[in-house]
Amino acid sequence: MSKKVAVIMGSDSDFPVVRSALTELKKYGVEFECHIMSAHRTPAEAAAFASSAAENGFGVIICAAGMAAHLAGVIAGNTILPVIGIPMSSSVLDGMDALLATVMMPPGVPVATVAVNGAKNAAVLAVQILALSDSELSRRLADEKQKMADAVAKKDAAIQEEIKNV
Amino acid sequence: MSKKVAVIMGSDSDFPVVRSALTELKKYGVEFECHIMSAHRTPAEAAAFASSAAENGFGVIICAAGMAAHLAGVIAGNTILPVIGIPMSSSVLDGMDALLATVMMPPGVPVATVAVNGAKNAAVLAVQILALSDSELSRRLADEKQKMADAVAKKDAAIQEEIKNV
Amino acid sequence: MSKKVAVIMGSDSDFPVVRSALTELKKYGVEFECHIMSAHRTPAEAAAFASSAAENGFGVIICAAGMAAHLAGVIAGNTILPVIGIPMSSSVLDGMDALLATVMMPPGVPVATVAVNGAKNAAVLAVQILALSDSELSRRLADEKQKMADAVAKKDAAIQEEIKNV
Amino acid sequence: MSKKVAVIMGSDSDFPVVRSALTELKKYGVEFECHIMSAHRTPAEAAAFASSAAENGFGVIICAAGMAAHLAGVIAGNTILPVIGIPMSSSVLDGMDALLATVMMPPGVPVATVAVNGAKNAAVLAVQILALSDSELSRRLADEKQKMADAVAKKDAAIQEEIKNV
Amino acid sequence: MSKKVAVIMGSDSDFPVVRSALTELKKYGVEFECHIMSAHRTPAEAAAFASSAAENGFGVIICAAGMAAHLAGVIAGNTILPVIGIPMSSSVLDGMDALLATVMMPPGVPVATVAVNGAKNAAVLAVQILALSDSELSRRLADEKQKMADAVAKKDAAIQEEIKNV
Amino acid sequence: MSKKVAVIMGSDSDFPVVRSALTELKKYGVEFECHIMSAHRTPAEAAAFASSAAENGFGVIICAAGMAAHLAGVIAGNTILPVIGIPMSSSVLDGMDALLATVMMPPGVPVATVAVNGAKNAAVLAVQILALSDSELSRRLADEKQKMADAVAKKDAAIQEEIKNV
Amino acid sequence: MSKKVAVIMGSDSDFPVVRSALTELKKYGVEFECHIMSAHRTPAEAAAFASSAAENGFGVIICAAGMAAHLAGVIAGNTILPVIGIPMSSSVLDGMDALLATVMMPPGVPVATVAVNGAKNAAVLAVQILALSDSELSRRLADEKQKMADAVAKKDAAIQEEIKNV
Amino acid sequence: MSKKVAVIMGSDSDFPVVRSALTELKKYGVEFECHIMSAHRTPAEAAAFASSAAENGFGVIICAAGMAAHLAGVIAGNTILPVIGIPMSSSVLDGMDALLATVMMPPGVPVATVAVNGAKNAAVLAVQILALSDSELSRRLADEKQKMADAVAKKDAAIQEEIKNV
Repeated sequence: MSKKVAVIMGSDSDFPVVRSALTELKKYGVEFECHIMSAHRTPAEAAAFASSAAENGFGVIICAAGMAAHLAGVIAGNTILPVIGIPMSSSVLDGMDALLATVMMPPGVPVATVAVNGAKNAAVLAVQILALSDSELSRRLADEKQKMADAVAKKDAAIQEEIKNV
Repeated sequence: MSKKVAVIMGSDSDFPVVRSALTELKKYGVEFECHIMSAHRTPAEAAAFASSAAENGFGVIICAAGMAAHLAGVIAGNTILPVIGIPMSSSVLDGMDALLATVMMPPGVPVATVAVNGAKNAAVLAVQILALSDSELSRRLADEKQKMADAVAKKDAAIQEEIKNV
Repeated sequence: MSKKVAVIMGSDSDFPVVRSALTELKKYGVEFECHIMSAHRTPAEAAAFASSAAENGFGVIICAAGMAAHLAGVIAGNTILPVIGIPMSSSVLDGMDALLATVMMPPGVPVATVAVNGAKNAAVLAVQILALSDSELSRRLADEKQKMADAVAKKDAAIQEEIKNV
Repeated sequence: MSKKVAVIMGSDSDFPVVRSALTELKKYGVEFECHIMSAHRTPAEAAAFASSAAENGFGVIICAAGMAAHLAGVIAGNTILPVIGIPMSSSVLDGMDALLATVMMPPGVPVATVAVNGAKNAAVLAVQILALSDSELSRRLADEKQKMADAVAKKDAAIQEEIKNV
Repeated sequence: MSKKVAVIMGSDSDFPVVRSALTELKKYGVEFECHIMSAHRTPAEAAAFASSAAENGFGVIICAAGMAAHLAGVIAGNTILPVIGIPMSSSVLDGMDALLATVMMPPGVPVATVAVNGAKNAAVLAVQILALSDSELSRRLADEKQKMADAVAKKDAAIQEEIKNV
Repeated sequence: MSKKVAVIMGSDSDFPVVRSALTELKKYGVEFECHIMSAHRTPAEAAAFASSAAENGFGVIICAAGMAAHLAGVIAGNTILPVIGIPMSSSVLDGMDALLATVMMPPGVPVATVAVNGAKNAAVLAVQILALSDSELSRRLADEKQKMADAVAKKDAAIQEEIKNV
Repeated sequence: MSKKVAVIMGSDSDFPVVRSALTELKKYGVEFECHIMSAHRTPAEAAAFASSAAENGFGVIICAAGMAAHLAGVIAGNTILPVIGIPMSSSVLDGMDALLATVMMPPGVPVATVAVNGAKNAAVLAVQILALSDSELSRRLADEKQKMADAVAKKDAAIQEEIKNV
Repeated sequence: MSKKVAVIMGSDSDFPVVRSALTELKKYGVEFECHIMSAHRTPAEAAAFASSAAENGFGVIICAAGMAAHLAGVIAGNTILPVIGIPMSSSVLDGMDALLATVMMPPGVPVATVAVNGAKNAAVLAVQILALSDSELSRRLADEKQKMADAVAKKDAAIQEEIKNV
């Protein structure tokens, strides 16, 4: 059976965006835990969680944080599991602060960064990682990829109607 | 045994930076292939490589590209394997173009982006992913993490001498 | 008779902006097709469309995409027709991601980039290109240019009234 | 026979970059003129050149300028020919000033913008435009596209040797 | 008597912001004309206006434009009068495009640039320039400067009340 | 007893954000004064306030200003007290202008800069500084730090309920 | 006779760039003084200079400063003379910090900002301002404008030779 | 007697810049320790150092780090001492990544950020903080402030000679 995914966010205000990561994981039947932890407010808890994540059955840790987003980096400093970072946009700077604070990690401690507010993609990436040793997940990913293509084809068909009114 | 890692770069001018990804993979004993392919100049080859990568024994695909870096995204569009993107800096814009063109992927098709020119971290991330089902790789990652910490401690000791001359 | 223009967008959410490109083409009596295709979700369809566009009677391909906008580049990689890219703004970063991902193409594979959300100008540019071998289109472009100038003159006259209330 | 291409630069200091546009046009056997004109220093000459460009046998006008790059826009304001803008980097800001000043044109007056310093691509785009009514140019573009692909394949082969030394 | 100020905007959509420049000029009793002219849509009119502005009694020309804001530069290329540029923000990029397109002028052709949307300051700057040879304007500028200081002092007093409720 | 904190803002429009700095200082029982002063409109008052701040019992000066935010720098130029700068966002540029204008101070005259609109943190930083010689403040800071951690733990518990509905 | 121009720089390291402003003023026969003053290190001197500049015979004040460039703003806060700001690039950020810190002035206190490192243009703008009441300066500005045009024409002629070698 | 200052850097490659912080502290006779510690490579050591810094006699902690600079934030999460952050520029992005990753801290955990590479100012700020309860340090700060002013005056005198050669 696949390992679990941990989804950690720096603040409960991140939940409306992060929720789509959980929905996605659920769609794939991947077991997950979700926590609020802070690199700045609960640093010991965050470090402890990361340090024991592998032995606690986690395979991937997704971290969502905004502004000077240190959460993913701090988690990555305390584990050898792959860590996925979601830079969250906040009231100013459109998430550019969080993007740079998440992606520009120094040599030796990578954070796999997805788009600003890219919670769904963080989950997909986690599933892709777990699917390497879970052929059922692989099959579902291929199914979803096909569904995405089908959806585009459907939208293309639908737009042909709309165009008549241009 | 672990799956292979593919390291693809858009141009041979990327090799001086990408080389450190190969060195790192070699250090961990991870088998890899390295190719030059272009999303714009050899799109069919790139798509074909990505489409068959899983069945050809690859577990992770690392893509390095600069400017309007489309390589990682195009590869990711043709596989369900995790794709790692290295945004390469070029003569202007300091890699900000490549960073945004790599990381801001739309929902459903993630690229795990590392720092601008972050070739070593792309390799470490690939190893972390493969290590999920390879306990020997896990052990080596833990060793390397310890070595990094030891190196910092050593440098801290060394700096104490330098400080006396301030 | 003039060749057709293809207008491709990455997602149907782009349609409200892209619509003005279609309106503009219609104004000039230029025949067009409009499709939803994705560099990431339907890469094979996009490549196939581009590869056969010339023989299918298209003269110009307009591509609208946001975020890590790869659509125009991928299309350009599969055709020798002129490709016009419209960088679309999305919820963060004001289209700067799409602009850089569209315009910073590597040597040999240009994308003729217009302003962020510049759908109307993409159409005008396409008409200017087709007009090179269609004197009727040239005449209409000259007419429109004159109308634009007249409209400015009219607005200048109108503003003289408003100024009296300052 | 194909129309001519005009290549205009704002300053002779742009020539080292712009030269590759001329080389490229020559490679395709496209006739061109090259001029130094300034939107700010010789505005009347620039306007006059643009206004009469079509009747003087030009089909495309390429404009290279840096800083507050107004040249392409000013030319585009005075012609209905397609105008291609090359944003030139200067001593500060990496060409971001020229890129925005070139690409963000208002509705009705497009400039087909290529990458910062993208002189070669400006020429390729001009050739693609002229090729719409010149099948010989089309053939050459297809040849060059194939040569680019072959060159990538050759580099891919060559890199296999280098990799052995990693 | 003082020379007139010309206030030119690229589009009537700029008027809500530009209006405060007119109000300010009126406050100082400076005579002005206000026009809509476009560097791209009515280039000949803009050039003609600039070329004859000095002999028509203007002392300063204020230009407001957004996006790839060429208006101030084009006007400055056709006059030796001081030209003041107001970069206007538009729907994306927060006016950064207009700021760079206005301020980064090449040697020999300056544009005196004020803040994004800084219409009031454009007028104040124009008045400061005209005041050099108009002592009555100087006196009024000094008065206004004092009034600004008084207003700050008054607000400081008022805030002391509000603070009690913190 | 602790020294006072001065909270200065460039305009009363800054008060809604700055208020949280006052609230925070009040929470810690730190005495403060709050003033509206402007580096540009009341430069003499600002300089006089800064010059005499130390002898008037102030220990820290917090300055909030937007756009070309000079207030903190000007205050810092006239005192040896630690000066804390709050860059305020305004209608365009998201506070990036104020951030750079506050933080990039030349050698010898530092401004301790906090986040854009980071009024609460400016107060916390002031309290941390005063706490160095006030053990009661230290105790309260430690208490607040613990409360923050407790609040995160509580939110983590609460989110477990919400997750069930995903 | 014309008023004097003051050229103030924040540091003697600015002199290599600022020198071209002095050369330009000299070319026009405009009398100038040049000083090193700092908004942060000699704020009282800077304020005093600005406050008495008008009565000391100055007509325009040019200020060159880098990083959090407050000099022009501080000078402008203490005079009603037109103040021209030259944002200086320093070792990082390419002068974007200085540009925003100079140009984004609040309502009522404008700084006429020229390009990053645009010292020559600061001088030309000062001359344009003084020329409003000095017809001899006007004549020289018109001469120089003509010379610039002639130089471009000459360079255009010269480039025709170079092109033959392409 | 004053408390000690801790100067921590993320890598020994930061030392050439950080050295000037040490020199400055020495000039003021402030006792300091200097360490290399990493938020990512030695997170436990960094947390332990911060947690015990107050009881170990430190009054201020200066942290220098580049890229996704997490060091200052992580230290600040583990202490109530004032933490000063020096964003270090690295090979790309000019320190903008480090600046945003250092300054944009969430409410409750401030980092007093100085300019990119602003090591000297970090030290001056630390001294200003310590001087609040050390009148000898206050006196020295006032002396240095005077010396800075004198140096500017001296440079102003010297430049008068250079100007004669313009």
